[in-house]
Amino acid sequence: MTVLMHTLHVDLGERSYPIYIGRDLFSDGALLRDHVAGRQVALVSNETVAPLYVDRVREALSEVDLVSEIVLPDGEQYKTLETLQVIFDRLLQDGHNRSTTLIAVGGGVVGDMTGFAAACYQRGVNFIQVPTTLLAQVDSSVGGKTGVNHPLGKNMIGAFHQPRCVLIDIDTLHTLPEREMAAGLAEVVKYGLICDEPFYRWLHEHMPNLLAREESALVEAIERSCMNKAQVVAEDERETGVRAILNLGHTFGHAIETAQGYGSWLHGEAVAAGMCIATRLSVALGNIPETEALALESLLQRMNLPTKPPQDMGVDQFLTLMGRDKKVSDGQLRLVLLRGIGDAIVTADTPLDEVAAVLG
Amino acid sequence: MTVLMHTLHVDLGERSYPIYIGRDLFSDGALLRDHVAGRQVALVSNETVAPLYVDRVREALSEVDLVSEIVLPDGEQYKTLETLQVIFDRLLQDGHNRSTTLIAVGGGVVGDMTGFAAACYQRGVNFIQVPTTLLAQVDSSVGGKTGVNHPLGKNMIGAFHQPRCVLIDIDTLHTLPEREMAAGLAEVVKYGLICDEPFYRWLHEHMPNLLAREESALVEAIERSCMNKAQVVAEDERETGVRAILNLGHTFGHAIETAQGYGSWLHGEAVAAGMCIATRLSVALGNIPETEALALESLLQRMNLPTKPPQDMGVDQFLTLMGRDKKVSDGQLRLVLLRGIGDAIVTADTPLDEVAAVLG
Repeated sequence: MTVLMHTLHVDLGERSYPIYIGRDLFSDGALLRDHVAGRQVALVSNETVAPLYVDRVREALSEVDLVSEIVLPDGEQYKTLETLQVIFDRLLQDGHNRSTTLIAVGGGVVGDMTGFAAACYQRGVNFIQVPTTLLAQVDSSVGGKTGVNHPLGKNMIGAFHQPRCVLIDIDTLHTLPEREMAAGLAEVVKYGLICDEPFYRWLHEHMPNLLAREESALVEAIERSCMNKAQVVAEDERETGVRAILNLGHTFGHAIETAQGYGSWLHGEAVAAGMCIATRLSVALGNIPETEALALESLLQRMNLPTKPPQDMGVDQFLTLMGRDKKVSDGQLRLVLLRGIGDAIVTADTPLDEVAAVLG
Repeated sequence: MTVLMHTLHVDLGERSYPIYIGRDLFSDGALLRDHVAGRQVALVSNETVAPLYVDRVREALSEVDLVSEIVLPDGEQYKTLETLQVIFDRLLQDGHNRSTTLIAVGGGVVGDMTGFAAACYQRGVNFIQVPTTLLAQVDSSVGGKTGVNHPLGKNMIGAFHQPRCVLIDIDTLHTLPEREMAAGLAEVVKYGLICDEPFYRWLHEHMPNLLAREESALVEAIERSCMNKAQVVAEDERETGVRAILNLGHTFGHAIETAQGYGSWLHGEAVAAGMCIATRLSVALGNIPETEALALESLLQRMNLPTKPPQDMGVDQFLTLMGRDKKVSDGQLRLVLLRGIGDAIVTADTPLDEVAAVLG
C-alpha cells in the first residue's frame, strides 16, 4: 500500500496548522490522533458520506473514550441555523465538554457547519477538516471561514475559526460524481486566474488528466491550490484586504445561488458562471484581451460547467442580491476583477452601468 | 446638568476598550458616535427597556445614516438561537453590511445575545454595550463573553467577542426593580469574595447605602467591580486559567437555573445561592472559618437574596447538571472555591462526597 504524502503549512502564528495531502490517509490513525487534544470526538458527516468513510475514520480513533457520530442531511439547503442546532443537541446529549474535538468528514457544507459549530460550542472547541470533495479539499477546508446560510444571503452567519489540521485523502475523489468534480475544478481554475498564471496555463494543458482523475495530476492541482490559498490567508486571515481576491466570481455566484434556491446550482457551478462575468467585465474595462475570456469559457465548457448566469435572472435581481453581499462596504459595491491573468484586484469604483451591461 | 464620569480600560492589546461610568451619559452623543465605525447602527433592546431608553440613544445617533431598532421579548427564557435568528432577519432585511455597529441597550440577556449576534453576523461586526441593569453593568457587559442558552445548559453556544466600549449610565438604576437590583449586588459581592477583601469589607459596611441607591456608593461599587473584572479578563481573555474564578458560585448556580427553567430564578439569585454552597464547601475543607459563611449569608439575606438551593433539588440532579458545566474538563469536575476571603482558586480535586454533603 503506497501512502504518498505532501505536507503544507498555513502560517497563522499560534493558529498555524498543517495540511496533509495523500492516499489512504484514513488508515494512518496516528495522523488524526496527533491532532485530537482531549478524550472526546464527534464525527460530523452527511447521509451520503457517512456510509463511505465514517467507519474508517472511527477505526483510526479506537483509543478515544467517546466518539459520537452526527449524520446531517445532504445538501446546501440544509446549511442553516436549524441544522446547527442538531449538532449542538447531540454534543450536549452525549456530554461533550470544552476539550472535545469535532471532525468534519464531507464536503464544503459539512465542513462549514462543523467548523461553525466548533467555533460556538461552549465558546469554541477544536476541530479537524477531513474534506471528501474536490471543492472542499482545495477551498473551503482551508482558511477558517465557517458558517451557515440565511434565506437572504449565503454564509451570512458564521465565524473565523481555524482547524487543527486538514487531512486530504485523494482516494475519496474516486467516488465523487462528475458534476461535483467539475464544481471543484472551477475553484482550482480560480487560483490560477487570481494569483498563479503558470498554474493557469498548466491547467489548460492538463485538464484531460484531471478529468480522467489521474493521481499525479490531482495531487499537483490540489497542492498548488492549497499553497495559493494558504499564502493569501496567511497574509490576511480576517479578510480586511487581499483575502477578498479569493472571492473572484463569488459576488455574482452568491447572487445566482440565492436566486435559484440553495442546492439547485452547485457552489462551484455558480462560481464558474460568476468568474466568466467578472472576466467579461475585466475585458470591458480594457484590462485583459477578449481572447482570454474566450479561453476561460472554453476551458470551463470542457468541464461541463456553466459560463453564463441562469436565463431567468435579470440585471435588477443581480444588483439587489449583490447589495447584500459581504463585500458591500457602506453602500459601495466591491468587486474582484482581473488586472491580468494571475493578477486579481478588489475594486469599489466599477461604474454600475458597466456591471449592468455585462449582466444584461 | 452634572455629567460625572469615570473611565476604566480593559487591556486586551488590539481588542482593548474603555468603560465609561457616569450619570446622564446618553445625552453625550459624542461618546457613542466616537465608537461607531461605519454609517449603520442596529439598536437591540427588549420590550421593557425600549420604551425607557431607546429614543434617547437614537437621538444621540442623529448623524448615522441607518438606525434599525430591534426589540426582543424580555426574559432569560428567550436567550435562544431562535431569538438570535430574529436579529439576523432584521439586519439582513434592513441591509446592514460588515461595517455596521450593533448596540445592546438592556440587561445581561440583551447584551449576551447582541454580542453573539455581532460575533456571527457576516463573521463579525462591531458592537457596543449599554447595560441598563446593575448585573449587566458590573458583570456581563465587560469581558466579551457572549452567547445563548440551550435547553440542556446555560450559555452553551457562544463566542468571545469584545465590545468597542461599555457605556454605564447609572441613572438607569433608578427604574430597576428591587429584585433585579439585589441580583446585581450578588455579583458585586462575588468580586469582593474572589479577589478583593477590602472591597468585601466595604460592602458589608455600605450595603444600606447601596440598597438606598445612593449615587456615590453605586459608582464606587460599579467601578470597583469593573476594575476587578477588567483585571482578571486582561490576564486570561479566553478562560484558560485564572478567569474561571469569576465563576464562583456559577457551577452550582447554572445547575439551579437549568433545573428551575430559565427565567424562574434570576441569574444573580442563583449565583447568590451558589456562592453560599461554594463557601460552605470551603468551610468544610477547612479553608475559612464558619463565621465567614454565616457573615456572607447574613449579608445576602439583607438583600433578600436566597442562600440555599431550591428545596426540590436533590444531590443527584445537581451532579448531573454540573456534569454539563463548561468547567468540566475530561470528566473532572472543576470548582471555584475560597482559600480565604478575597482569594479564590479553581480546583479539580474536591472529593465528590464532600460536594454531596454540602448539597444534601
